[in-house]
Amino acid sequence: MKNNKISTRLLSVSILFLCSAMNIFAQESDVHNISSMLEVQQYERAIHIMAMLLIGFGFLMVFVKKYGRSALTATFLLVSLSLPLYMSIKGLGVFESKGEIEQLILAEFGAASLLIAAGAILGRIKIYQYLVLGLLFIPFYVLNELIVLDDYFHFVGKVADTGGSIVIHAFGALFGIAAAVSLTSKKDMEVPVVSDATTDKYSVLGSMVLWVFWPSFCAALVPVEAIPHTVVNVFLALCGSTLATYLTSLIIRGKACIADIANASLAGGVAIGATCDFASHPQAMIIGCVAGIISTIGFAILQDKQQKFHKIIDTCGVSNLHGIPGIFGGLVAIAVVPDLNITAQLTGLLITIVLAVVAGLLSGKIISLFGKTKEIYNDCSELYDAD
Amino acid sequence: MKNNKISTRLLSVSILFLCSAMNIFAQESDVHNISSMLEVQQYERAIHIMAMLLIGFGFLMVFVKKYGRSALTATFLLVSLSLPLYMSIKGLGVFESKGEIEQLILAEFGAASLLIAAGAILGRIKIYQYLVLGLLFIPFYVLNELIVLDDYFHFVGKVADTGGSIVIHAFGALFGIAAAVSLTSKKDMEVPVVSDATTDKYSVLGSMVLWVFWPSFCAALVPVEAIPHTVVNVFLALCGSTLATYLTSLIIRGKACIADIANASLAGGVAIGATCDFASHPQAMIIGCVAGIISTIGFAILQDKQQKFHKIIDTCGVSNLHGIPGIFGGLVAIAVVPDLNITAQLTGLLITIVLAVVAGLLSGKIISLFGKTKEIYNDCSELYDAD
Amino acid sequence: MKNNKISTRLLSVSILFLCSAMNIFAQESDVHNISSMLEVQQYERAIHIMAMLLIGFGFLMVFVKKYGRSALTATFLLVSLSLPLYMSIKGLGVFESKGEIEQLILAEFGAASLLIAAGAILGRIKIYQYLVLGLLFIPFYVLNELIVLDDYFHFVGKVADTGGSIVIHAFGALFGIAAAVSLTSKKDMEVPVVSDATTDKYSVLGSMVLWVFWPSFCAALVPVEAIPHTVVNVFLALCGSTLATYLTSLIIRGKACIADIANASLAGGVAIGATCDFASHPQAMIIGCVAGIISTIGFAILQDKQQKFHKIIDTCGVSNLHGIPGIFGGLVAIAVVPDLNITAQLTGLLITIVLAVVAGLLSGKIISLFGKTKEIYNDCSELYDAD
Repeated sequence: MKNNKISTRLLSVSILFLCSAMNIFAQESDVHNISSMLEVQQYERAIHIMAMLLIGFGFLMVFVKKYGRSALTATFLLVSLSLPLYMSIKGLGVFESKGEIEQLILAEFGAASLLIAAGAILGRIKIYQYLVLGLLFIPFYVLNELIVLDDYFHFVGKVADTGGSIVIHAFGALFGIAAAVSLTSKKDMEVPVVSDATTDKYSVLGSMVLWVFWPSFCAALVPVEAIPHTVVNVFLALCGSTLATYLTSLIIRGKACIADIANASLAGGVAIGATCDFASHPQAMIIGCVAGIISTIGFAILQDKQQKFHKIIDTCGVSNLHGIPGIFGGLVAIAVVPDLNITAQLTGLLITIVLAVVAGLLSGKIISLFGKTKEIYNDCSELYDAD
Repeated sequence: MKNNKISTRLLSVSILFLCSAMNIFAQESDVHNISSMLEVQQYERAIHIMAMLLIGFGFLMVFVKKYGRSALTATFLLVSLSLPLYMSIKGLGVFESKGEIEQLILAEFGAASLLIAAGAILGRIKIYQYLVLGLLFIPFYVLNELIVLDDYFHFVGKVADTGGSIVIHAFGALFGIAAAVSLTSKKDMEVPVVSDATTDKYSVLGSMVLWVFWPSFCAALVPVEAIPHTVVNVFLALCGSTLATYLTSLIIRGKACIADIANASLAGGVAIGATCDFASHPQAMIIGCVAGIISTIGFAILQDKQQKFHKIIDTCGVSNLHGIPGIFGGLVAIAVVPDLNITAQLTGLLITIVLAVVAGLLSGKIISLFGKTKEIYNDCSELYDAD
Repeated sequence: MKNNKISTRLLSVSILFLCSAMNIFAQESDVHNISSMLEVQQYERAIHIMAMLLIGFGFLMVFVKKYGRSALTATFLLVSLSLPLYMSIKGLGVFESKGEIEQLILAEFGAASLLIAAGAILGRIKIYQYLVLGLLFIPFYVLNELIVLDDYFHFVGKVADTGGSIVIHAFGALFGIAAAVSLTSKKDMEVPVVSDATTDKYSVLGSMVLWVFWPSFCAALVPVEAIPHTVVNVFLALCGSTLATYLTSLIIRGKACIADIANASLAGGVAIGATCDFASHPQAMIIGCVAGIISTIGFAILQDKQQKFHKIIDTCGVSNLHGIPGIFGGLVAIAVVPDLNITAQLTGLLITIVLAVVAGLLSGKIISLFGKTKEIYNDCSELYDAD
């Protein structure tokens, strides 16, 4: 009988043990699956960002007369150059290892910033010079990312910039504008950038692709549970800037301008970057509205004056779309993000500005050594016509 | 020895307990992760719907001569207005709380219905009047949704309309057509809507974007295990309507018409909405074929007659693409959905029709107070040309 | 006291049992959820592939002068015909059952291969003849898939072709070229294919859509844990072929050619197909570069010679983009994939080539019975103009 009792107990205990073991076993395969699935969900966002880079930026930049095909070619080349370049630099072993998709997304962020910089000097360099631009830009971008975002040298602290208002948008815009200093000829100042009437719709297409996928850009590396709030915030900011852009453009110009709408409507996405995971929904909407107003004023009023003052051409107006709204977004974080390290935020912003301007000036100089265009805005000189 | 036995037992029991506890603990974090991941999967579909709203509807409506840029601008504004407006109304606390992404998707459904309504009066109102349209439309849409889908007043019962054949497509189309009554001048009746030959391809682009992402529209809020069957059904319905449209257009007109193909190919998606999660695959294909035939007959034969009869212009032919196929889809549910409450289905459809027409007539009247266009179809009067 | 002890034991054991049971229960619903969620993740990739089929292939083929609208219509019809046709054939019960989304993706693969074949004879058949092409192509495609990929007749062995370099790209291209033999008139040989200058940007749009979503094509049916490595490989191969295409085009022609860039940039995606889940990142980049160079040489130098030699026109140059890079990709697997069955790989490739050529020759003959175009490249004869 005692044996019986013992064996019963042994049996029940071993059944339980088996159950538990099976659970743990099943669990482990689940946990494994779940972590893979989370990475695949990141991949979905990586694809959205890739659509923004190629189709979004590419077609938004098509508007320059006689330069549309070059803009598309340049976009193709800049993306194809910067992704492997970024991944190679980050893969040199100096830095902590991350998931492959996270690496890819970080590389896409670098490519986005590079395309913003290219927008400032679009139409004034030869296609192969974009390759030089990419080779110079990415190392500086990585350096800034290391200092400001990763705080690799431990003197900045934690900066709030989830969606890259500062390190992607402001950095890219300022780099591009600084590079334009050496790449703007007197002739460029005399002959205005002529946009191509038939390409309006392509620009809007590019703009819409950017608009639609922007939430995936901001939420790309956000923890899974914070994604819903973040993406709704980004959409609300974009709605705000789109409405504000239309009204501001109507008030300033008398008529709404399709170029304003294609561009400044996106300013909400730029500005919400730093606070997309912290802002409340109404805050997101307000940030978007303000960014839209600022950006439209930039395109409609300031651009001409700024270009004359600084003696540069900013072809795509990146200072109005990415520069000022990016800095505005970085500063808004001070009011919106709880427990923000204000010193870190301001230091990070300042370092980004200084580094972007210095690196841009230097890079512009180097690129200009590879030739300056004399004739203006015609890509026939560089692109082969089959017909 | 007894102590030994007891301690052994205690040990084994506590190990088991620990294992179980760990399991539960791990499980909870998993369950948490899984529910977040399900919401992120919903978000993927929300992004697809957003692509349909801006790029799909936007470019499908580009075809009106001298009005393409206005159509794109109007699309931008209507989406940007309706999303926050819908979310504000639903967020007033009267209604049950839902996930943020579910709220976003419901708001997108409202925006889709609004864009359909706008398609009926496209080209005959000023851009700012679209804002008035949006402000009037969304509250009526929410009211209809409350009555018919949520059965808030408990007199309809459960209506089958997963993909919105009734509450999105039919409601939007009827609202738009009713609004057109007050917004169609005699001159509009004399001068036909001229489409722009060079924009054919843009329309097809818009149509393809709608086609590709339509399954995400129908399956947006479907439970995860029902998604595969639902999305395959939607694709089959679209395949059916595309093939049927080509053949019907060829038979009726002698030549296939690209405008028929760009529009009526989508009728399968409209009609399958009410039954997308219940129909079998062959049923889905048949529903799509029938919808494609009906819709093509509408575009090729009925549109002219109906416009003369009702003395209205339906610019985009929304009655052919969304109105009739939507009602057809709602009725097909009676034959296809098992255990359907037929009274509820018919009541829901009837309420939707009546509410849409009344609200549309009223809204059209109000919008016409803000001005009627005298000159026809040229957006230069409203859009600033930088060149 | 003994009772007490027993009851204590019973209690603790039953608590444990309950915990375990609950775990298992919860687990089962989780496991259920997880398997559904994995299928929904596949669905995301299925949508990406659908965007490639309609928007990508459709707009890439728009370039033929006076034939753009027909190309788009043909794309619509070929996709709408092949998806249900493939699913019907596979659903006849001869074959093992798979998930609905997996079936859908396999059908999409068939549609992709069909579109590639259509690219070779684009502009030389009437629109309804594309339906004949589809009806003939899909059964042959399924047969080849059965023999080579599923090894249904047990005489090939395991072939490495995850992303379809062999069974999708090479098969489709060779089928199309063989079909062109019966469909190329003397007149076609005299009058060159004229591309439409204003549609350059549409082609680049199609190309970019293909580029962006290509990783989802290759990783569509890859196990979840292998997806990150696979998709990064595909992007790196595309980056490689894009850079190589630009440089090769520049070197050969003196100026970069936008048609080369729109097409040959994708050769990396074609070539990496067979090895996308096995190659290392540097290998992927190299495979892409080589494919880009080969493909550009094909477009810039070989196409004219090959067409004269074989007395056929390959309208879209599918032999340069899909044929040669596809075969190259299939062969590269021998060097890259560990433990590859080399005999199987070569047998599979050989069967694919032979079957594609024989089936293509036969199908071209049959299609030509339905009429041959006499006038060249103008879709007005077949498409109705509303204006």
